[in-house]
Amino acid sequence: MMSRIAFIGLGNMGGGMAANLVKAGHEVFAFDLSDAALARAVEAGCVAAGSAAEAAKGADAVVTMLPAGQHVAAVYGEQVMPAAGAGTLFLDCSTIDVETARTVSAQAVEAGFEMVDAPVSGGIAAANGGTLTFMVGGSAEGFARAAPILQAMGKVVVHAGGAGAGQAAKICNNMLLGASMIATAEAFVLARKLGLEAQTFFDISSKASGQCWSMTSYCPVPGPVPASPANRDYEGGFASALMLKDLKLAVEAAQAAGAPVPMATQAEALYQMFVGLGGAGRDFSAIITMLEGRSA
Amino acid sequence: MMSRIAFIGLGNMGGGMAANLVKAGHEVFAFDLSDAALARAVEAGCVAAGSAAEAAKGADAVVTMLPAGQHVAAVYGEQVMPAAGAGTLFLDCSTIDVETARTVSAQAVEAGFEMVDAPVSGGIAAANGGTLTFMVGGSAEGFARAAPILQAMGKVVVHAGGAGAGQAAKICNNMLLGASMIATAEAFVLARKLGLEAQTFFDISSKASGQCWSMTSYCPVPGPVPASPANRDYEGGFASALMLKDLKLAVEAAQAAGAPVPMATQAEALYQMFVGLGGAGRDFSAIITMLEGRSA
Amino acid sequence: MMSRIAFIGLGNMGGGMAANLVKAGHEVFAFDLSDAALARAVEAGCVAAGSAAEAAKGADAVVTMLPAGQHVAAVYGEQVMPAAGAGTLFLDCSTIDVETARTVSAQAVEAGFEMVDAPVSGGIAAANGGTLTFMVGGSAEGFARAAPILQAMGKVVVHAGGAGAGQAAKICNNMLLGASMIATAEAFVLARKLGLEAQTFFDISSKASGQCWSMTSYCPVPGPVPASPANRDYEGGFASALMLKDLKLAVEAAQAAGAPVPMATQAEALYQMFVGLGGAGRDFSAIITMLEGRSA
Amino acid sequence: MMSRIAFIGLGNMGGGMAANLVKAGHEVFAFDLSDAALARAVEAGCVAAGSAAEAAKGADAVVTMLPAGQHVAAVYGEQVMPAAGAGTLFLDCSTIDVETARTVSAQAVEAGFEMVDAPVSGGIAAANGGTLTFMVGGSAEGFARAAPILQAMGKVVVHAGGAGAGQAAKICNNMLLGASMIATAEAFVLARKLGLEAQTFFDISSKASGQCWSMTSYCPVPGPVPASPANRDYEGGFASALMLKDLKLAVEAAQAAGAPVPMATQAEALYQMFVGLGGAGRDFSAIITMLEGRSA
Repeated sequence: MMSRIAFIGLGNMGGGMAANLVKAGHEVFAFDLSDAALARAVEAGCVAAGSAAEAAKGADAVVTMLPAGQHVAAVYGEQVMPAAGAGTLFLDCSTIDVETARTVSAQAVEAGFEMVDAPVSGGIAAANGGTLTFMVGGSAEGFARAAPILQAMGKVVVHAGGAGAGQAAKICNNMLLGASMIATAEAFVLARKLGLEAQTFFDISSKASGQCWSMTSYCPVPGPVPASPANRDYEGGFASALMLKDLKLAVEAAQAAGAPVPMATQAEALYQMFVGLGGAGRDFSAIITMLEGRSA
Repeated sequence: MMSRIAFIGLGNMGGGMAANLVKAGHEVFAFDLSDAALARAVEAGCVAAGSAAEAAKGADAVVTMLPAGQHVAAVYGEQVMPAAGAGTLFLDCSTIDVETARTVSAQAVEAGFEMVDAPVSGGIAAANGGTLTFMVGGSAEGFARAAPILQAMGKVVVHAGGAGAGQAAKICNNMLLGASMIATAEAFVLARKLGLEAQTFFDISSKASGQCWSMTSYCPVPGPVPASPANRDYEGGFASALMLKDLKLAVEAAQAAGAPVPMATQAEALYQMFVGLGGAGRDFSAIITMLEGRSA
Repeated sequence: MMSRIAFIGLGNMGGGMAANLVKAGHEVFAFDLSDAALARAVEAGCVAAGSAAEAAKGADAVVTMLPAGQHVAAVYGEQVMPAAGAGTLFLDCSTIDVETARTVSAQAVEAGFEMVDAPVSGGIAAANGGTLTFMVGGSAEGFARAAPILQAMGKVVVHAGGAGAGQAAKICNNMLLGASMIATAEAFVLARKLGLEAQTFFDISSKASGQCWSMTSYCPVPGPVPASPANRDYEGGFASALMLKDLKLAVEAAQAAGAPVPMATQAEALYQMFVGLGGAGRDFSAIITMLEGRSA
Repeated sequence: MMSRIAFIGLGNMGGGMAANLVKAGHEVFAFDLSDAALARAVEAGCVAAGSAAEAAKGADAVVTMLPAGQHVAAVYGEQVMPAAGAGTLFLDCSTIDVETARTVSAQAVEAGFEMVDAPVSGGIAAANGGTLTFMVGGSAEGFARAAPILQAMGKVVVHAGGAGAGQAAKICNNMLLGASMIATAEAFVLARKLGLEAQTFFDISSKASGQCWSMTSYCPVPGPVPASPANRDYEGGFASALMLKDLKLAVEAAQAAGAPVPMATQAEALYQMFVGLGGAGRDFSAIITMLEGRSA
């Protein structure tokens, strides 16, 4: 069923997502503070809106893809809610802190809207190809309404629980991922120093108790997994600066919740150091170069 | 082909392994400092020897399963080498430091023997059931001779490289495992504090980038993986004291090799604390209880 | 010179501080949400006010001692600023995050007030005895006006810089303190395990490069420093829950500023664990008991 | 009283120490594997010996200053003990692991010698200037005999306890120092990012609970402590590679003793990373540059 959808935030991820909504037959009113981003969205078939409020006016659903909690709170509070019609469905696909996600959702519900948080897993290629994973927090009804829209942009859409549960699932997953990647990198570095071939260690450990996604799908050394960024000098993929952002969200949430997360705080400190040493734009598996004593 | 095999070290693991060699048709001359352990081996069909040297005399192969490097060095140096015939094959299945493994192997080769280090993965049940995994270090010829003997005690036998490579592969794998288990535990603890059901988080993360063996085969919370020790109050399995031992070997090897392993040192410090708080005998996934503030 | 001072927040610390202002001859209008706390303040010579706003009306200066940034923002934004006369001096003695301190200060200045952040160092005894240290952030003029009032409650009053600099100085100092205390505890634990007497290690290290305040003024083992909480089973002093709060503020500020603080994140994770294990109310030097494997 | 002293190990530290024994009127028979080092010792008034054994023959006391435990064990076991006369006093000033120190001492006592371990605190300048601190482990009698010799090379000579206690005291102190230096560096980095002047933070924290030797005697930022290596681009002082060596000894001892030392393991991992990034030869306070994202 074709809907009228407002799409706000047309960056690296949002641009491809909006284009996929157009391809699925939706009418997309797009807005971004960057004229260039807006122009690309128009080229992909979106209708340019003059503001987030203008995009939201008359929309069946509003999708947002913004950098941080403060932007989400401001865009919904100041632009979208005052402009949108009663009952409009809001889908925030940004990765933000759980607390803000819950606050904005509560305000939306209070004001008569339906809202889900639906952060994504997968990078730019998945956003362009429509193969993202969405972790969705919100009511059963909200999820039911959101699912068909999200399916136009991704291949997996999971209901994680009530408001904020999408964000919670994402940061818990990525917190584990960050720790796991560094631990995997350490194992490969030590294996090499002890005289083991990377491929040999991979063959053994990937079938044993050391197996993890960071090893078998995203191996931080070149060779064993041909598609991993390690094979193209850690270009592309998931930038270390974004991993650091997610680890900060996780540690922040853990601090607020009183959960000790010593491996995650360690990972955060190490990614902070790697970013400080110049690694911000490199794939997050490039942290192995810091352990090896190569410059970022 | 039936061989005459000396088996030294008949503890929880060694007892079952020796029994499987008997079942495979080998003649096994067994020795242990504990009379009770020796009696159990005899019951399983082994012939009791009065000393390690006596067991080694006339054997085609000598298998050892001992607690630490110093025991391996002493048993081979003082008992086995003086007694064994030229060309005897030595298989050390103990988990020990890489350096000692290499030193003893070099001495054995120097003295005209063939030697492999073949530490195991898998616990007491796998030792009894003959389903262990062996990671083998040694020459191609040594591996070729050792493989049939090891296959009588396990289902996977991998050649990791030259002398010491078996130990190297095992500690790199277990180093990653230890870090990974704590990181997984943290993710489940935080997920719960953020309101996510354990099963829901498992369903999402086990299919996403947080997936790891610690989650999908050995989940530290009860429920998602029915066979994991978490479902029986962390009894049995792989004791925290043994995980700590492996992490110490790994950190020690990393120190000697000049490899920075910040996640592994963190894991080691945490397991040391957990053992100090009384967790030595509990399964290593029980470290989640320390994060949850439950007493060990 | 006698002033009319509003004092808001009469807890363990604030109660003693308000009493000292009375002793110095000031007229103190006090408010707290707790009737019991308010009654104690009246007993000490304060005048009870019905609300923070009522206390602030007609005051020359307003002093606040509140639990966290959100309370400070709310009390000033909703109560104090609407009620206070132009030019009133605000002194926030709470320990809060630097960002909130700067935001509230900017709002106060914008509205025509003068404001300093003046968090304290020293515990309940120092609050009662008037021997606190104040680290003050604000303009030179604000500091000049605030100093005489603060001197009635403490013995050291330092100007750390512009708005927020008091908070910055405090959390940087306490971040170092938290890490330093655990490191000191580790040294004493290891010394004992290696057979060194605590007093002997103290005698050597306190005159060598290991010297630190945590050792020489607040030694975490009983004996060497008779006044330290270790000598009275870690009662009193500076509660672990408060150290954890300060470490959270520090790590949060470091995250926002992009500063890697691996020792501080480690300390935070360890205090989080100690609090989880039941240590919240014990002196922060009691973290040595966790390292020793004694229950909190 | 003039003695005949054998001095083995004439490196950066040993050279100056041997020269100070000559100045104090002792007859010093010196040996080193390096001809250049030996030549310098002869220039300083020592008599060249052809081997460690030759130096030890007829000596009243033997002083050793060697890189690691294995050298100490070999020199005493193979050279000194076979050559030295009954009752000779051995003083090992090397920094080595506690276990080897105790083993060699026990062998010496068993063979009829007296032995103390007497590692030093202070760098090359202190070795040349005769202002070292000696932490001494051994019997009361051994200490009484060793003290006058050590006083010729240093200004503080402390008896730490029985055999190995000197090593224990040194590594516990330096373990604390390493952790403390990084924590201090973090505090200065964060302070600056929060807008505090280094001098201002120093003025406040050096008089408060953050005070430590790393701050007040060896400040890792230029300015506050003019003599600290930070003021000369981290040249000279105590090299990061040596701090890493001491942290390894400490962590190793803690592993063997079952003491959890999470701050020390963190410090070790960070110094390992700093050394890997090229910092081996820089003063250990230069680790602040890694936190600041400057190349080593």
